[in-house]
Amino acid sequence: MSATNRQIRLAARPVGEVDPEDWEHCAGPVDEPGPGRFAGRTRAISLDPAMRGWLDDRPSYLPPVGIGEVMRAGSVIEVTASDHPDFQPGDHVVGTFGVQEYVVSDGRGAMKIDTSLAPPSTYLGALGMPGMTAYFGLLDVGALKDGETVVVSGAAGAVGTIAGQIAKAKGCRVVGIAGGPEKCAMLTDELGFDAAIDYRADDVRKALRRHAPDGIDVYFDNVGGDILDAALTRLAMHARVVVCGAISQYNNDTPVKGPSNYLSLLVRRARMEGFVVFDYADRYAQAARDIAAWIADGRIKVKEHIVQGSVDDFPETLQMLFRGENVGKLVLELV
Amino acid sequence: MSATNRQIRLAARPVGEVDPEDWEHCAGPVDEPGPGRFAGRTRAISLDPAMRGWLDDRPSYLPPVGIGEVMRAGSVIEVTASDHPDFQPGDHVVGTFGVQEYVVSDGRGAMKIDTSLAPPSTYLGALGMPGMTAYFGLLDVGALKDGETVVVSGAAGAVGTIAGQIAKAKGCRVVGIAGGPEKCAMLTDELGFDAAIDYRADDVRKALRRHAPDGIDVYFDNVGGDILDAALTRLAMHARVVVCGAISQYNNDTPVKGPSNYLSLLVRRARMEGFVVFDYADRYAQAARDIAAWIADGRIKVKEHIVQGSVDDFPETLQMLFRGENVGKLVLELV
Repeated sequence: MSATNRQIRLAARPVGEVDPEDWEHCAGPVDEPGPGRFAGRTRAISLDPAMRGWLDDRPSYLPPVGIGEVMRAGSVIEVTASDHPDFQPGDHVVGTFGVQEYVVSDGRGAMKIDTSLAPPSTYLGALGMPGMTAYFGLLDVGALKDGETVVVSGAAGAVGTIAGQIAKAKGCRVVGIAGGPEKCAMLTDELGFDAAIDYRADDVRKALRRHAPDGIDVYFDNVGGDILDAALTRLAMHARVVVCGAISQYNNDTPVKGPSNYLSLLVRRARMEGFVVFDYADRYAQAARDIAAWIADGRIKVKEHIVQGSVDDFPETLQMLFRGENVGKLVLELV
Repeated sequence: MSATNRQIRLAARPVGEVDPEDWEHCAGPVDEPGPGRFAGRTRAISLDPAMRGWLDDRPSYLPPVGIGEVMRAGSVIEVTASDHPDFQPGDHVVGTFGVQEYVVSDGRGAMKIDTSLAPPSTYLGALGMPGMTAYFGLLDVGALKDGETVVVSGAAGAVGTIAGQIAKAKGCRVVGIAGGPEKCAMLTDELGFDAAIDYRADDVRKALRRHAPDGIDVYFDNVGGDILDAALTRLAMHARVVVCGAISQYNNDTPVKGPSNYLSLLVRRARMEGFVVFDYADRYAQAARDIAAWIADGRIKVKEHIVQGSVDDFPETLQMLFRGENVGKLVLELV
């Protein structure tokens, strides 16, 4: 092949917000698959808030992306050539293939998908990591029970839209917290949330008192910061706070704002628990079947925000997450 | 009777540290017991960090002490007269009788104790609320397993000394955090802790790395603040953080310092959980039997700090808790 492989590599560790100069736009060779491997062309790249954490050189649930390495990302590729028995040219495959146009893989961590059932983007969203995160965070970590009151922050995002709709499917009262009137209207009018709180316009604490008058049984937190603190003041007895993420804090160049109201955990006999979705890998298949069934019967509506472009658009697209510009799963579709 | 009943009443809500002017020293009448009641004279009054919280006018697990009300306190009284079938003159009784010399009670929440088995002070400490708090906090909320690594803050206090020794009795590695070399020496030399960290002299984070090299499985927190934050950086996978109290924050006149490192809960798949000991009332008897057995076989050594005086010494004695001047259970014995 004479094509070049456009790649986005990490050039420098960002401090606070990620800067355009923290990325290197490279053109590498397009590799042949070689024995036991397959090659493919990237079709869709996932953009996730967790990516910000992967750029910091500190111990976490995954090693940091190294300086000079291709940026880690989930993506869907289309196989172009293969010496691997399980993958054939034309197959669509999801995996952690990185921000690059061409990929060679030995198949580890890769999974063939059926694009006749759902488009590639959905395998990066509702049927991918965000869907799994919502499912296990809510049902396992949150130990959700039918009829409880659930509050989801970052409710208009990839995980939040699914978490809220799973809670609705389980017969819960669901309140979403999101930024701006459009997102809030989408949550209630389109996704069936019982109420939505616009954290930019509303006093979140007062709004929670109004919309969760008997207290919050499960608080699914994607944002941290002041919204977490507000939710802590409204916990029901034996509440569960699911620590899924803290997007409000990821770009800090100062220490993370700890939840000042954490002593509510004592008063309300409540717990706050973190998790990493990878721990549930042996149950992904069941979760995907459940979510697919809810999509099929209309109880889950899939919200995706698809940006069409090239890998060079990755840095700018990633920033949309932190500016709250996406609704649902943000995907960069390569055209 | 012609005696007067010296009482300590709340005069004003403290802001930050409790001020001597926040208390009113009163002399009330000594009441007759009346039908179905008994009267008694206070022998020993419990001093507890939680008392600071009872003075604030905010929702909590108990209503605040009202302005003008006798200060709430656990105490042991000796019955002097009785029209109650279960309590006879000469009986010693533990209950929430308040900071006053003479008490009249209908017996609700009162329990007869055997002072031939242990002195009154121990029924306010190891066999009382602090003992119950350590027991249920560690074994139920902390879900302690044999052989785990346990870190206790406020380790030289009423709850901490018992929690650490219960963990030792369960075969755990136990690290205590306390203020000053004397307390630390007491923990290791007398109570059998595996290590002690002097938070006034040591870098707690580094010391935890040294003394809990494989991480902390259960962190029993009595103090909050910077020590909680240090412990969060050293959690083992699936760790449990037991939120028992936050004495470092109780006298704040600024917002509580939230744990900036709470996202460790996510990375370490850990949980932070609060509790209130009263919820375990139906299991106090079993806990007291277990603790009494460990005292009898020498696995728990009872540490008590007894101040002899009158109810008028209550305000000054209470301050000792927040200055870290007590070792073990602080009790005001009326002489």
